[in-house]
Amino acid sequence: MNNNAFALKGSVIYSQDCNTLVSAATSYLICEDGKVAGVFETIPSRFEGIPITDYGNKLIIPGLIDLHVHAPQYTYRALGMDLELLPWLNTYAFPEEAKYAEEAYARKAYGRFTRALSASATTRAAIFATLHVPATNILMDLVEQTGVQAYIGKVNMDRNSPDNLIETTVQSVEATEKWLKGCVGRYENCKPMLTPRFIPSCSNELMAGLGELQRKYKLPLQSHLSENASEIAWVQQLHPDTHCYGDAYEKYGVFGGECPTIMAHCVHPNEAELELMDKNGVFIAHCPQSNMNICSGVAPVRTYLERNMRVGLGSDVAGGADLSIFKAMADAIRASKLRWALKDKTLAPLTVPEAFYLATKGGGAFWGKVGSFEEGYEFDAVVLDDSNLEGSEEFSVQQRLERIIYLSDDRNVIHKFIKGKQIR
Amino acid sequence: MNNNAFALKGSVIYSQDCNTLVSAATSYLICEDGKVAGVFETIPSRFEGIPITDYGNKLIIPGLIDLHVHAPQYTYRALGMDLELLPWLNTYAFPEEAKYAEEAYARKAYGRFTRALSASATTRAAIFATLHVPATNILMDLVEQTGVQAYIGKVNMDRNSPDNLIETTVQSVEATEKWLKGCVGRYENCKPMLTPRFIPSCSNELMAGLGELQRKYKLPLQSHLSENASEIAWVQQLHPDTHCYGDAYEKYGVFGGECPTIMAHCVHPNEAELELMDKNGVFIAHCPQSNMNICSGVAPVRTYLERNMRVGLGSDVAGGADLSIFKAMADAIRASKLRWALKDKTLAPLTVPEAFYLATKGGGAFWGKVGSFEEGYEFDAVVLDDSNLEGSEEFSVQQRLERIIYLSDDRNVIHKFIKGKQIR
Repeated sequence: MNNNAFALKGSVIYSQDCNTLVSAATSYLICEDGKVAGVFETIPSRFEGIPITDYGNKLIIPGLIDLHVHAPQYTYRALGMDLELLPWLNTYAFPEEAKYAEEAYARKAYGRFTRALSASATTRAAIFATLHVPATNILMDLVEQTGVQAYIGKVNMDRNSPDNLIETTVQSVEATEKWLKGCVGRYENCKPMLTPRFIPSCSNELMAGLGELQRKYKLPLQSHLSENASEIAWVQQLHPDTHCYGDAYEKYGVFGGECPTIMAHCVHPNEAELELMDKNGVFIAHCPQSNMNICSGVAPVRTYLERNMRVGLGSDVAGGADLSIFKAMADAIRASKLRWALKDKTLAPLTVPEAFYLATKGGGAFWGKVGSFEEGYEFDAVVLDDSNLEGSEEFSVQQRLERIIYLSDDRNVIHKFIKGKQIR
Repeated sequence: MNNNAFALKGSVIYSQDCNTLVSAATSYLICEDGKVAGVFETIPSRFEGIPITDYGNKLIIPGLIDLHVHAPQYTYRALGMDLELLPWLNTYAFPEEAKYAEEAYARKAYGRFTRALSASATTRAAIFATLHVPATNILMDLVEQTGVQAYIGKVNMDRNSPDNLIETTVQSVEATEKWLKGCVGRYENCKPMLTPRFIPSCSNELMAGLGELQRKYKLPLQSHLSENASEIAWVQQLHPDTHCYGDAYEKYGVFGGECPTIMAHCVHPNEAELELMDKNGVFIAHCPQSNMNICSGVAPVRTYLERNMRVGLGSDVAGGADLSIFKAMADAIRASKLRWALKDKTLAPLTVPEAFYLATKGGGAFWGKVGSFEEGYEFDAVVLDDSNLEGSEEFSVQQRLERIIYLSDDRNVIHKFIKGKQIR
């Protein structure tokens, strides 16, 4: 008997690859030393006697991954989505983020965000804070308590930004390095991540400075890419020597490669950008609801899957109104259907197995072996009670997952485990 | 003092027209003899002493209108949406509907539907049953108990349908007339409505027979129109003499005019169809989620509004997964944004006031003066508690409505009044 092992009993389902869901109506999901030992119909002899929690026919799935979310915009979610990206930033997002200069506001607002994150099925997330270091530390303290594994970034922005939400180049680089040093050894669950807002709000000098910090500290980085036509044109104007928007990051050595990189959106890549993302192993955070809400369009996710590129889902609160990654799956499917129906019949709509893959194993790969119940994966699991949807006795495990994707809310999420530890 | 009057106190908001929301942070919504007497900052002297229910700062809105929903598909919602309309009908919708031949199944399944309808913010609905008369009567009995005002239709289908879900022409007409006679005087809240499924499943003789029944009994009628390209091509093949799909209904005198008619979808109207719908005052049930889920496209709702045509929203469960008309509003806005972004920059995306208008006054017009709090409108009101969304003290009434549209679920719906009577 292994003292560091336990089993959860229930209806287990997970992705093997983007086309294949593996499910078992009643089975044992075994955790050993924080990792998945396997899914079994009966407990194997070497695990005899381990503690078993019996969840009846409740669903057990890998934890969901949110590859892109703006924590400071949570309070303002579901408001003011009558504009496209650039005016939306100036009218809604920037004024809200400026409020985080005040620590009391940050504590209250980030408290709301982290309570919602905790109640969701999300187990890992890549999170934008604001440019304010004290507020970013408050966010990290609060996320740490939820047990969610998170990369969190103090945002950098030194140009094309409002007077109350801007840094000088020197301030931005120095504050980032000071913040990074303060993070070392401070958290078990939270890690820092470089977070230049996007090319239009970061000067060349700032990007160069962040590139140096990245190489010095071996840090992952997150930013935005090719979300909206006006934004792309603006980047081209700022960097006329580039073949694509991604090139403007590549110039400073911060577009994937050695240090893992997440780029949110990638709605309108050209061929040069596709190739660069592919070559550098950039993670794409597909944010379908946000891309609908602020009229950006629909990313060619089928292309990313066909080329075996790295892609997951993001809620992108508050371009997205919803923190739920189940909703992001439903939105990804719906958006892909309208893309097919209205624009491009060469890319077939996404399926339920594909959307679930994106939300688990696809995004999870950013953390390594995360997002599946195959042997050796980190034991991140969510237990779901779908009894309020009625019919759990009538449907297959895969059908129940499908209904959860389209119909669930926080009431359905009852327990969460991360790296084998129950956090809820 | 008027004995048939009372007031609800709260934060009131309603549509005056499709561009104008009227709101008041704290005010009295007065009901007199089942109709709205007005919204006042203080109780007018002629109403002094009437009972007042104080809902604090809770939101009070007109009841929502669902112009198109298939009750028998509710049990199967959120499943099997990987196909387009015609194969989806054959693979999922028809087999499910065939189960309603059995009364015990109908009672159980319709019980689920009516409980959900009751818990929703919907106060009026136009509902498809199946072709089975006993099951349709069970549905009417159950909806009657919810207090929701509903038109309900026994479905007619005598061709291109599976063996276990089809009638002969004579059976279909006779069963319909017998069912109609049985409805007379039986219900306070439910009324019968003619419901030919759609042109492909109704022979010319059946359509002619239903046209006669309509003229004899002065009945409203509901059906489907121009949802999907393959369906439209099929109708053109079945009726080569027509200028548009709607013409195939018009041939039998069942396309609006004297008897009110609801046509669901209208995603792909040609100019002839637009003119015919406009001339005949056909009500369009825009079903954005269904049109995404089964890849139909996005209806040109802005065109309908600009031409002052009659248009409201439908959940279209189970092409739509959700019974919530709030979700239909959010989906209508999002779908219109993708239509704009991917297909046609001439039609601007829908706004929040427009979506709310469609869901209330737009659809409500099918019942007459319904869907607003202007004087003389039927007193249908829903009381909403948005405290779980946090921030109700920080936002304007209109902003709170916006958040309810994007974020609410059945937990937020706490009371419903219809024609001045509290039903929940």
